[in-house]
Amino acid sequence: MAINVLGYGVLQSKTPLAPYQFKRREPRADDVVIEILYCGVCHSDLHHVYGDWPSRYPLVPGHEVIGRVIQVGDNVTKFKVGDHAGVGCMVDSCQHCQPCQHGLEQYCEAGNTLTYNDHDRHDHMPTFGGYSEKIIVTEKFALKIAPNMDLKSAAPLLCAGITTWSPLRHWQVNESSRVAVVGLGGLGHMAIKLAKGLGAEVTLFTRSKGKELDAKRLGADHIVLSTDARQMDAVKGRFDLIIDTVPTIHDINPYVNTLALNGTHVLVGYLGDLDPFLNTLPLIMGRKSVAGSVIGGIAETQEMLDFCAEHHITCDIEMIDIQYINQAYERMLKSDVKYRFVIDMASLKQNK
Amino acid sequence: MAINVLGYGVLQSKTPLAPYQFKRREPRADDVVIEILYCGVCHSDLHHVYGDWPSRYPLVPGHEVIGRVIQVGDNVTKFKVGDHAGVGCMVDSCQHCQPCQHGLEQYCEAGNTLTYNDHDRHDHMPTFGGYSEKIIVTEKFALKIAPNMDLKSAAPLLCAGITTWSPLRHWQVNESSRVAVVGLGGLGHMAIKLAKGLGAEVTLFTRSKGKELDAKRLGADHIVLSTDARQMDAVKGRFDLIIDTVPTIHDINPYVNTLALNGTHVLVGYLGDLDPFLNTLPLIMGRKSVAGSVIGGIAETQEMLDFCAEHHITCDIEMIDIQYINQAYERMLKSDVKYRFVIDMASLKQNK
Ligand SMILES: [Zn+2]
Ligand SMILES: [Zn+2]
Ligand SMILES: [Zn+2]
Ligand SMILES: [Zn+2]
Repeated sequence: MAINVLGYGVLQSKTPLAPYQFKRREPRADDVVIEILYCGVCHSDLHHVYGDWPSRYPLVPGHEVIGRVIQVGDNVTKFKVGDHAGVGCMVDSCQHCQPCQHGLEQYCEAGNTLTYNDHDRHDHMPTFGGYSEKIIVTEKFALKIAPNMDLKSAAPLLCAGITTWSPLRHWQVNESSRVAVVGLGGLGHMAIKLAKGLGAEVTLFTRSKGKELDAKRLGADHIVLSTDARQMDAVKGRFDLIIDTVPTIHDINPYVNTLALNGTHVLVGYLGDLDPFLNTLPLIMGRKSVAGSVIGGIAETQEMLDFCAEHHITCDIEMIDIQYINQAYERMLKSDVKYRFVIDMASLKQNK
Repeated sequence: MAINVLGYGVLQSKTPLAPYQFKRREPRADDVVIEILYCGVCHSDLHHVYGDWPSRYPLVPGHEVIGRVIQVGDNVTKFKVGDHAGVGCMVDSCQHCQPCQHGLEQYCEAGNTLTYNDHDRHDHMPTFGGYSEKIIVTEKFALKIAPNMDLKSAAPLLCAGITTWSPLRHWQVNESSRVAVVGLGGLGHMAIKLAKGLGAEVTLFTRSKGKELDAKRLGADHIVLSTDARQMDAVKGRFDLIIDTVPTIHDINPYVNTLALNGTHVLVGYLGDLDPFLNTLPLIMGRKSVAGSVIGGIAETQEMLDFCAEHHITCDIEMIDIQYINQAYERMLKSDVKYRFVIDMASLKQNK
């Protein structure tokens, strides 16, 4: 029998998030039922609630989910009741295509099943996200959380963490790499920590002088003011990999000039046209690349979580009650958060 | 003592090429003196003569040089008098920087010495290209030509060949690769032959229906009319590597859509702004890259020449006398050549 779940959602775009009761499927044999303890607040959530991106309503956001397993299906082997578990941006994929077979479910050719704003690929019920009491997910898309992890600050690893980890690993960052990060938000601050964890020299590109101390505290070796032509010139040809987390339209040409031979500028935050025009001269004369990357595969997400547990890497968060979510969105629009809001889902009991 | 050499050159931009007498350096201990037999005609030659690109005059173009060694310095070990030798786009580099030490002289951090339109890095004499009787070059930048090679059709390998070979090798094209080539000119027809030689499935993107038969003859497995939306849609997500040889401004977005997961669109022909805007969506959603590449290193050029000798790969050429060069340029502007003009340098004797 389907399960009644309370969450926060919207019935249409551009309305405030409010308590919303909905149904989740009856757990299947391969499902785990997770009582949600914490849910990170991602910019995607905001874009869906505001209707900036194509969305299906009613919509319950949230894809940085940490909770406790309270029920397991008969075929579940990875989890037992009482384990902690995480859920990220995907809850299923075709499992048959080449990308799926190579652990690249984020690039599933049949389209993976998103944690919210999607439909289950078996029973076609709508998917609802982590701003809610419980989530039901096939065990193969649930992540194990090491016992020593701080649960609330681990939540944003499920999106912000893996989104920056995947390109760092794909482009083989190691102790001899020079990595730069553009933008110091939820993604950017994780990119600094993870690149540093991998042993790289890390530089932050920022437009605001005020971020220097914080960036150093997070692990950045150098800070470059991207508005200062002299500073930009001083790092010309320097970086093997640039992780560009800026979510809005911006000129990437100045960053491409700071790439070393064979370097790659990888976009993870901005979907749209690159305005102004991208100039091919530095690409050709330095065999440089401009690339993109989206989240990461399930095995890679587990790898990242285990790496963070081992290296004591967590997300810098501000805990909020679910009732504060609409104000939190307002503050996110002003980049007024260091560096991720995480909802304490216990607060949802006040709406019972 | 410096050597008097007759060639074809220009004293300023936008004037016709005409006989021009100039001096080359007295051969040094590591130099070979090459009597030039054939010289390919590259689009770069035209851009320098016409003044489209920054140029130093007087200028003698030509960087697809094949000839016979007629003199060797005391320290030369690679060549003996009577050997055939080739010279490409570079005649020297710093030999000390990281790229040089990794055989990537084309990306020399100190700037390599170009075959023409440059200055020797030791005596600072201007460099002059292969539209001339003789060239003097350090043996380490002279290429060995296998005895079984057809000399005249090997000449364009020194630029058109290596420019397409280098990205095919860097992006590891092999029997399981799907490669597409944009544009069927000097570079494009070599890209087809070389990719096919490496065992890849090869598709030509072209705007003109008339090229189908020729492309198949050159080895293309498939031809896709880039002006036909239905044909473009049918190859969506298909290619591991696209070699884009188009030398003029063009929209690469439709080609990026035809890249497979992790695919790369590599520009080798067009220096400038990518107009219209590059859209990041397919890059991010398929971890695709847009990259550039320029010529290739010396060891890689030798590898390519040896590969061509072994696989009987040659350039399709039209032989001309040097006196025809200005008409040849006019025809190149109309893409009226299959696929490379090569100057028979014996014709230069008529100007003696
Ligand atoms: Zn997210
Ligand atoms: Zn799949
Ligand atoms: Zn050339
Ligand atoms: Zn060098």
